[in-house]
Amino acid sequence: MTGAASRINLASDNVVGASAQVLDAIVRANADAEPSYGADRYCAQAEAALAELFERPLQVCLTATGTAANALALAALCPPWGAVLCHAESHILEDECGAPEFYSGGAKLIGIPGVAGKITPAGLTDALARLSPGVARSVQPAALSLSQVTEAGTLYSLDELQALTALARQHGLRCHLDGSRYANAMVALDCSAAAMSWQAGFDAITFGATKNGALACEAVLMFDPALAASLPFQRKRAGHTLSKSRLLGAQMAAYLQDGHWRDNALHANAMAARLAAALAAVPGVRLPWPTQANEVFAVVPAALDARWREAGIVCAGWSSCGLPEGFAIAAEQRFLRFVTSYATTQGQLAALEGV
Amino acid sequence: MTGAASRINLASDNVVGASAQVLDAIVRANADAEPSYGADRYCAQAEAALAELFERPLQVCLTATGTAANALALAALCPPWGAVLCHAESHILEDECGAPEFYSGGAKLIGIPGVAGKITPAGLTDALARLSPGVARSVQPAALSLSQVTEAGTLYSLDELQALTALARQHGLRCHLDGSRYANAMVALDCSAAAMSWQAGFDAITFGATKNGALACEAVLMFDPALAASLPFQRKRAGHTLSKSRLLGAQMAAYLQDGHWRDNALHANAMAARLAAALAAVPGVRLPWPTQANEVFAVVPAALDARWREAGIVCAGWSSCGLPEGFAIAAEQRFLRFVTSYATTQGQLAALEGV
Amino acid sequence: MTGAASRINLASDNVVGASAQVLDAIVRANADAEPSYGADRYCAQAEAALAELFERPLQVCLTATGTAANALALAALCPPWGAVLCHAESHILEDECGAPEFYSGGAKLIGIPGVAGKITPAGLTDALARLSPGVARSVQPAALSLSQVTEAGTLYSLDELQALTALARQHGLRCHLDGSRYANAMVALDCSAAAMSWQAGFDAITFGATKNGALACEAVLMFDPALAASLPFQRKRAGHTLSKSRLLGAQMAAYLQDGHWRDNALHANAMAARLAAALAAVPGVRLPWPTQANEVFAVVPAALDARWREAGIVCAGWSSCGLPEGFAIAAEQRFLRFVTSYATTQGQLAALEGV
Amino acid sequence: MTGAASRINLASDNVVGASAQVLDAIVRANADAEPSYGADRYCAQAEAALAELFERPLQVCLTATGTAANALALAALCPPWGAVLCHAESHILEDECGAPEFYSGGAKLIGIPGVAGKITPAGLTDALARLSPGVARSVQPAALSLSQVTEAGTLYSLDELQALTALARQHGLRCHLDGSRYANAMVALDCSAAAMSWQAGFDAITFGATKNGALACEAVLMFDPALAASLPFQRKRAGHTLSKSRLLGAQMAAYLQDGHWRDNALHANAMAARLAAALAAVPGVRLPWPTQANEVFAVVPAALDARWREAGIVCAGWSSCGLPEGFAIAAEQRFLRFVTSYATTQGQLAALEGV
Repeated sequence: MTGAASRINLASDNVVGASAQVLDAIVRANADAEPSYGADRYCAQAEAALAELFERPLQVCLTATGTAANALALAALCPPWGAVLCHAESHILEDECGAPEFYSGGAKLIGIPGVAGKITPAGLTDALARLSPGVARSVQPAALSLSQVTEAGTLYSLDELQALTALARQHGLRCHLDGSRYANAMVALDCSAAAMSWQAGFDAITFGATKNGALACEAVLMFDPALAASLPFQRKRAGHTLSKSRLLGAQMAAYLQDGHWRDNALHANAMAARLAAALAAVPGVRLPWPTQANEVFAVVPAALDARWREAGIVCAGWSSCGLPEGFAIAAEQRFLRFVTSYATTQGQLAALEGV
Repeated sequence: MTGAASRINLASDNVVGASAQVLDAIVRANADAEPSYGADRYCAQAEAALAELFERPLQVCLTATGTAANALALAALCPPWGAVLCHAESHILEDECGAPEFYSGGAKLIGIPGVAGKITPAGLTDALARLSPGVARSVQPAALSLSQVTEAGTLYSLDELQALTALARQHGLRCHLDGSRYANAMVALDCSAAAMSWQAGFDAITFGATKNGALACEAVLMFDPALAASLPFQRKRAGHTLSKSRLLGAQMAAYLQDGHWRDNALHANAMAARLAAALAAVPGVRLPWPTQANEVFAVVPAALDARWREAGIVCAGWSSCGLPEGFAIAAEQRFLRFVTSYATTQGQLAALEGV
Repeated sequence: MTGAASRINLASDNVVGASAQVLDAIVRANADAEPSYGADRYCAQAEAALAELFERPLQVCLTATGTAANALALAALCPPWGAVLCHAESHILEDECGAPEFYSGGAKLIGIPGVAGKITPAGLTDALARLSPGVARSVQPAALSLSQVTEAGTLYSLDELQALTALARQHGLRCHLDGSRYANAMVALDCSAAAMSWQAGFDAITFGATKNGALACEAVLMFDPALAASLPFQRKRAGHTLSKSRLLGAQMAAYLQDGHWRDNALHANAMAARLAAALAAVPGVRLPWPTQANEVFAVVPAALDARWREAGIVCAGWSSCGLPEGFAIAAEQRFLRFVTSYATTQGQLAALEGV
Repeated sequence: MTGAASRINLASDNVVGASAQVLDAIVRANADAEPSYGADRYCAQAEAALAELFERPLQVCLTATGTAANALALAALCPPWGAVLCHAESHILEDECGAPEFYSGGAKLIGIPGVAGKITPAGLTDALARLSPGVARSVQPAALSLSQVTEAGTLYSLDELQALTALARQHGLRCHLDGSRYANAMVALDCSAAAMSWQAGFDAITFGATKNGALACEAVLMFDPALAASLPFQRKRAGHTLSKSRLLGAQMAAYLQDGHWRDNALHANAMAARLAAALAAVPGVRLPWPTQANEVFAVVPAALDARWREAGIVCAGWSSCGLPEGFAIAAEQRFLRFVTSYATTQGQLAALEGV
């Protein structure tokens, strides 16, 4: 093989297509006439499957992207004059071109620093101390948004999540979880979907499928009909209500069927664990924090990075601003991210490890 | 067959799935690793094919919905304090839950009445006369948006389009065409893509594929890089930049290959012509205006509507507010819309006509 | 006299300065140190006086302009995906450059036609029939906004107001009254402030003072603390929370003291009544509707308009689009508006009548 | 004296009313009929005086508040998907309840830390390094906003201003100066208005008058008609176009006449210098940075603070987050801000010093 197809691309878990199971579902759902704009039978199946997975009634809003799902969720939790507290390197703050600001009508995202992509209660307390609830000159503390898996590929324990949401609730905040890699986190923590969402104090979840086997499908999940009442209108006016909505319903239904999400996530995480172990054994390679899901971050010699490039292995250079103190990157070093997916093969990793 | 699948659904051209050619393209594009966020090879193919179809360089912004495409285009043409002039029954005004207002930061859409879904130069002149260019209390006339095919299923001739855009330009307006059924209009007018867009005075086109064979794919097309400069950022912050963007690229590339768009549109229009002729021959049925593309509007006896329903034939009740003067709907009558598509069969129409 | 000062300016009731009583209050409030941002004693006085005038507790939000007050009120009543129903020639729709859209995050204002600036129940019913509550493609009916005095200088009776708000409430709408000339309407109807506001079914009032003796002071009044909770934050982020807030508080307190608002409004209305009677007696002059407050609309021979101009008498040309059917304006005629104020003198009117 | 009037209030320079000269101007401008909405003669005088002070043609947009002026200016410089870089403790970021986000349609403000309220070129470079120009996931670097006088009461030298704007321009940023205390800065630097604005590389200035003698008057000043073209419309739809606009014009014209702004600022600064010297001589009092304009920041024993309170002396507790490293505040200490104004008297300071 030559060209793009020959490469081993670990730049992200969004560089591969859909899994066979999801792709088949798209094809099978294509045949008949279906009502449009979410009234098709596949969306209904997806909603039922999500309610089953999360073990309770919930409000579901399917979208084609995680940015849309995050922004819709945050706009439901935060007024235009509100503040969303989040990690200083979070995706909603750094990588969505201001989508939460757009959807919320101009809310302010306040970044909280923290090692390995994680907010601590102390960090949250400090950030809250700078705001003045009830005082009109200050944006009003409205929501906490955590990422699980974090931008650093790390995980909050369930206890850590609960401690943060409890603290947030004491200050009147609503809580959102950006779960673009929700399945990877669940299998790593070996917990239920309920335990990592409403039982952990969250009002809204961005439940991702795209990175773990779907082609373009995410869901906003909310647990209070009153809070979620705006979602259908906000989604429509954002242009995220697909006319041939079966495309979304079929993906999500297939993703949830027979534990497909779990199989994919277990595989991706296992591949990352293998890769992390292999990299850690390479002289001159340092891993700044543990690999807990499907992302491996490593400081590597520039020469090794160059050899990988020559071999057609693609990974992503990463910003060093989130590294722990004392973890300096020398001039002849590179800070890289590798992301494994449901589609990563042992053979690909062996090839990488053999360079 | 039973259930939804057995029905003859002519409620819209968005109740059917993708055509076989488009669906195959989605499947074929799924295999390899591809760069994400629009950098894949399929998006490149789609852009090249659009440039060829429109016979000139252009800016392309693919989205999954027409609402997003319309709103992105209008936001690029109209400032928050601007006015978009459009037909009083247009989709952007009545059916997108305020998407243009959202994307533009609060621009005002001004509806212009007109028979059979069409704006006339006199109607446009009247609407412009109520605005005060340069006067701060007045929203500023910024854009004209026409729909081709119109909400009434009718067509502007190329001369009519040019007359309206010329008038608009004399008043400093930018011009947008909502072409969710662009292909149906093109084959009905037997004109080139260029003739109905930039040669007719338009700055931005919403080029639809979803209703004519794609699953979820539309394009904003613009002909001036400076005007289009905001699109990538606006699209991203609206959450419409798909990570696995091959989904969009593959659909549009397949839709444009080998005149697939043309074949589909010719078929849909021919089905509508057959249906219109058949309905016009039914005693007590009246067609308020000619059927020019793939939509048939008819006033029918309520009893006939009821028989169709019993037979599992689905069409859409329609608002009578756009009917020509003197075209009253009696109590025992219904005003209905039938939309044919690439997938409508002679057998379906025969069944309908036989009720 | 020469220049601007010599002219008799009836173009609007905002061309004159503050009344002596209001101006004195500004000067007297200037002396001492006062807490800023609304915590001064004058704002407290104004709030107390408003509660007394309206005979109940209420939420007060002072602003320097009516546009800000209207937009703040509407944004509190209408979500971004909502619709505000209002008269087709209303100030909020035609003369505020999209302020309600800006403040509400993109809500849609829907104009309802009606003779003499007034909405009828039938007109409101028609407009509501075009919206689809609960259906995501449609903006959601959220608020009715009436103007009292209307843009045509006419008045709704209390019964008419109640009929419209009752109808609106049946459809789940909140109700707003744009009362930039609230005092002129009150004295014309000889009713209490309560009767024309919360007793008539309104949730929010724009209570104007600027046109009737203040220099720059309006108030949003609301009668439900929950609905009004956003006002302090929204006002601050709109830049309408004056630091030296005594400027607003002193004006409003003086305006309400000893019935000053009433004296001013009675005078202005009496001047308009005199002018209307005088104009009606002039051959060739037609008044399209009764003069009910402080505005006189008249179709006059162009030659008379020219003579007034020469004499330094200033009034405003007006749009003829709101005229009753059959009230054509010939080429040698002009449609004019004259607005009297607290400062209009018998001498000025005598001069005008003598031209 | 009793009550509020007896207190020595140094909490801010906005707790006093207008200077006698400005108040007289308001009274004098009240007499005659004047065109409204900015067309009055006083606004024209103000614009001419500003052009003279800044020694060039410019675009002027008068407002009643600094928040409105800042937000209008930033919205003219920064698109909704842009970033405004500013100091981490700046007023636009911390004290305007998200006004810049509101006016800009959701732009992001990025706080840059810096000692004594000042941004350094290194800090600006670091912040820019985190953004990705031309990459759609990143908000786009659009504007630098500096405060002069800073939130810490300190000053940038002209060289420092120029170094920062030059660096910003190399990265394609527009430059804004929040000059709510512009006059205080000018007289402290003994420079011309031109030198601290367009000659220093700024595109837009918020030129404050309220804190230095006006009652409610600020100006957005811009030096490029194309950049400023949106201001009239944006101001109108924000509700900041006063109908009786003479109120703004008269204040600004009086403020600029005969160097009134200069006299007031020289006095306020001299009072602050006296106060700073006096405080520095008190045992146990520490000043974290030099007093350069009309604000004095000091760490004082809590007991002294208590005695001042008893004596009716009002100052403001201040956030310690901007203090230099090593400048810890002990439990029995307070960090306070004192602001002098045109109205501060030697007697007031003597009283304070005598406590």
